[in-house]
Amino acid sequence: MSQTDRQNQLQTLRARLGEISDINNALSVLHWDQEVYMPPKGASGRALQLATLSSISHARATDPELGALLEDLAAAGLKGDDAKLVSETLHDYRRAVKLPDEFVREFSLAQSRAFEAWVKARKDSDFAAFQPHLQTIVDLLRRRADYMGYEGSPYNALLEDYERGMRVDSLKPVFATLAKEQSRIVDAVTNSPHQPETAWLDQEWDEQTQWDFALQVAADFGYDLEAGRMDRSVHPFSTGFGIRDVRITTRLSKDELFMGLTGAMHETGHAMYEQGLREEDERTTLGEAISLGVHESQSRMWENMIGRGRAFWEHYTPKLREAFPLQMQDVSPEDVYRAVNRVQPSLIRVEADECTYNLHIVLRFEIEIDLIENRLAVKDVPEAWNAKVKQYLGLDVPGDAMGCLQDIHWSHGSMGYFPTYALGNLYAAQMFERIEKDVPLLWTGVERGDFSPLLNWLREHVHRVGRRMTAPELIQSITGKPLSPEPYLNYLKSKFGGLYQVSL
Amino acid sequence: MSQTDRQNQLQTLRARLGEISDINNALSVLHWDQEVYMPPKGASGRALQLATLSSISHARATDPELGALLEDLAAAGLKGDDAKLVSETLHDYRRAVKLPDEFVREFSLAQSRAFEAWVKARKDSDFAAFQPHLQTIVDLLRRRADYMGYEGSPYNALLEDYERGMRVDSLKPVFATLAKEQSRIVDAVTNSPHQPETAWLDQEWDEQTQWDFALQVAADFGYDLEAGRMDRSVHPFSTGFGIRDVRITTRLSKDELFMGLTGAMHETGHAMYEQGLREEDERTTLGEAISLGVHESQSRMWENMIGRGRAFWEHYTPKLREAFPLQMQDVSPEDVYRAVNRVQPSLIRVEADECTYNLHIVLRFEIEIDLIENRLAVKDVPEAWNAKVKQYLGLDVPGDAMGCLQDIHWSHGSMGYFPTYALGNLYAAQMFERIEKDVPLLWTGVERGDFSPLLNWLREHVHRVGRRMTAPELIQSITGKPLSPEPYLNYLKSKFGGLYQVSL
Repeated sequence: MSQTDRQNQLQTLRARLGEISDINNALSVLHWDQEVYMPPKGASGRALQLATLSSISHARATDPELGALLEDLAAAGLKGDDAKLVSETLHDYRRAVKLPDEFVREFSLAQSRAFEAWVKARKDSDFAAFQPHLQTIVDLLRRRADYMGYEGSPYNALLEDYERGMRVDSLKPVFATLAKEQSRIVDAVTNSPHQPETAWLDQEWDEQTQWDFALQVAADFGYDLEAGRMDRSVHPFSTGFGIRDVRITTRLSKDELFMGLTGAMHETGHAMYEQGLREEDERTTLGEAISLGVHESQSRMWENMIGRGRAFWEHYTPKLREAFPLQMQDVSPEDVYRAVNRVQPSLIRVEADECTYNLHIVLRFEIEIDLIENRLAVKDVPEAWNAKVKQYLGLDVPGDAMGCLQDIHWSHGSMGYFPTYALGNLYAAQMFERIEKDVPLLWTGVERGDFSPLLNWLREHVHRVGRRMTAPELIQSITGKPLSPEPYLNYLKSKFGGLYQVSL
Repeated sequence: MSQTDRQNQLQTLRARLGEISDINNALSVLHWDQEVYMPPKGASGRALQLATLSSISHARATDPELGALLEDLAAAGLKGDDAKLVSETLHDYRRAVKLPDEFVREFSLAQSRAFEAWVKARKDSDFAAFQPHLQTIVDLLRRRADYMGYEGSPYNALLEDYERGMRVDSLKPVFATLAKEQSRIVDAVTNSPHQPETAWLDQEWDEQTQWDFALQVAADFGYDLEAGRMDRSVHPFSTGFGIRDVRITTRLSKDELFMGLTGAMHETGHAMYEQGLREEDERTTLGEAISLGVHESQSRMWENMIGRGRAFWEHYTPKLREAFPLQMQDVSPEDVYRAVNRVQPSLIRVEADECTYNLHIVLRFEIEIDLIENRLAVKDVPEAWNAKVKQYLGLDVPGDAMGCLQDIHWSHGSMGYFPTYALGNLYAAQMFERIEKDVPLLWTGVERGDFSPLLNWLREHVHRVGRRMTAPELIQSITGKPLSPEPYLNYLKSKFGGLYQVSL
């Protein structure tokens, strides 16, 4: 085959991938609208639109002509990005063809119905109303695992969707370490006599003022609002339809000063990752994030390491005081830094402090494995949930809305997704050790509200990589080591040991 | 073929139409988002998403298997709704196959680019920035006319897209009558010594209060807000994604009391039509509006005959006074009724009063025909526009933003669309003669804020018809006569003769 013919093949491949990407972006717009603006009665129609587009996307992604083209290109001895594009796309193709079209359509419809039921069930704190939908989702996920194939636990097949190469057997010891160490840290910290002063938080915080402040922080971080926007939703999320339209949501309450802000900072971390993918990779397989764990490393780094850091509040406390002069007249940067890092076992994952956060993940991981491995019946989820909350967090769950109905993920048909949140914490901390060496001006920048040194580093070492590396390759290349829980635990010990004046 | 096989064929047809409808609804969501919430840099990606989905929709709508199925069913001697479903779908199919897929994709991309350019050009009042896009649109529309085929003017092929069976030759005498008669009415009315007192309008009107009031009126009309929502956009519009998610937009200014409200009432008229289509027709060809002219009859009836009517303001003036107590302490229902119907030639079509409105349409109709028939160069549009505004409205155009750049339609690739607005006025007035006979409690209802007698009549005689009739059939069946400009002119003479105390 001539060089020109080969180039034509690659162009055909790019055109096909471009159209698949357009369809998937359209699907994301429909999902965004569903969670942000869709009126309640629109749910049934939306479910059909999503199912039809999912089915069209799947048909294109599994088109035998695409398969033949990919096999041909894979045998052609391509080099560099072309080779990577072909191998990554072939990887996706071989996975996609395992799922029958009928299943894709059925799964999409079940997701939409489960989401609609979850919104209502959560509002009413009524697990029984969600139970049949969760049963359908679990059954479908078991079928999905069978289609995809797995060794060991069927949960491995689900993990593979979100964190390629990750396995139950490698996660279990990591999570055991995290659970043990973080429980110890939480005990030490909550028993310290040096508790933060937080009475000043119990005031009213105007929502519009909160909104404006959060949006300003997002813009300061480097989130391009000409290529993004922020809206409200029940469950904060980020989504993108190409690198020039990447949106975030958050939620606000006049009783909570930090909820909207930390949600916005978290989602901004995700959004800046998507905005930072290479323009020339757009609408191709290489122009995608590496994995959900790596995605979460970005959101949690910006939310926690930066947004809950001392340097950040040195700069932003005066600005927050300008926004809320009456409520904050006597509040110092150190007061805010201590308050925003208050450690307190709580029921809601997305509002959890850094010390307890992974405990929320561990309990979900255990429940999901038990569900998928058929050791736990769906009807017994609330009981199992509440027992584990007691075990890990020492709390009683007053109702399912604050318990097993709090998260959106199962209603989206996602299991195997939660572990990536804990992995995100670990990736972030491990990367951060390197960042602090590579970027000496990091903290002096943050103290001036200049986040570009960090963002530039992330752009170069993470965002622009696209799918040229896998997560293990990325972490090895950045840190010279495989993934380990130590950097995160060290980070927690150092930060919270200092905050609570305890030796950890 | 057995009865069962025939039923299976019909079921296959419905499944195919359902999926095409899902794709088209998804396209509408993307369009809605583009005009309401999309960040500016999202335009290029959105253009590709729209082009890809348009092309997929077109491919499905022109699938030869669908054609064969339809031909087969058309020859099967079906009866009733089944027969109508097949004949209407075959009608669409035969038109759709005339357009090559390449053209559909090219047209979609050109639309998106033209829309993006128009938004900016209008903001800067800079026709030159829009001119190359308008040239592309005109060229594409001429090609479209050639593909579709026509007799007489190529503009007939474009009219056919929006108002089936309508021709330039039948519109010209109607529009000549309207132009002549409405110019005469405007002259008489503006020269009357009995001018409305409108100085009270020159105050500030809080936008949120306006918003709440407009939304309440929309709900009172019968717009189901559980199956709809209102947002802001540069150009008010209504769109639906199935009967249970039909949305409207409006625009507001603190200097204009009526702009947001009348926009909302207008779009509510459109939206209630879509919400009133039959559930059992959903996702099929029968579950569509008859024509744009009939659609516009609904919006203009609710906006003008109801919302600018005396009975309406008897009920709503006290409520508006509650909303704006300081600004309206001395304003009576009659004052509002007269102010909201002030006749004054103006530059902006969507803000025009009922007497001058059709003059805006006539001038656009003439320019569009000249463009499509190649008698007017695109670069000369501003000059032609301004001359016609002088001729019909006696006004000088201070800039293109207030002139030929004011409307969104050309940027959407729509020509042949404006005439349907004038037709909407005529349909509405002609229907209304019948409605006033059929619904004796109409006005006493409106005086109490009860619009259900009117809505119920429209549901039965217009909305639920779907595509079971064409526009001429509908107007004949409702009024016993073909379309005529007389009822609308009579309506204007009676209403404005009374308001301005002149004999018309």
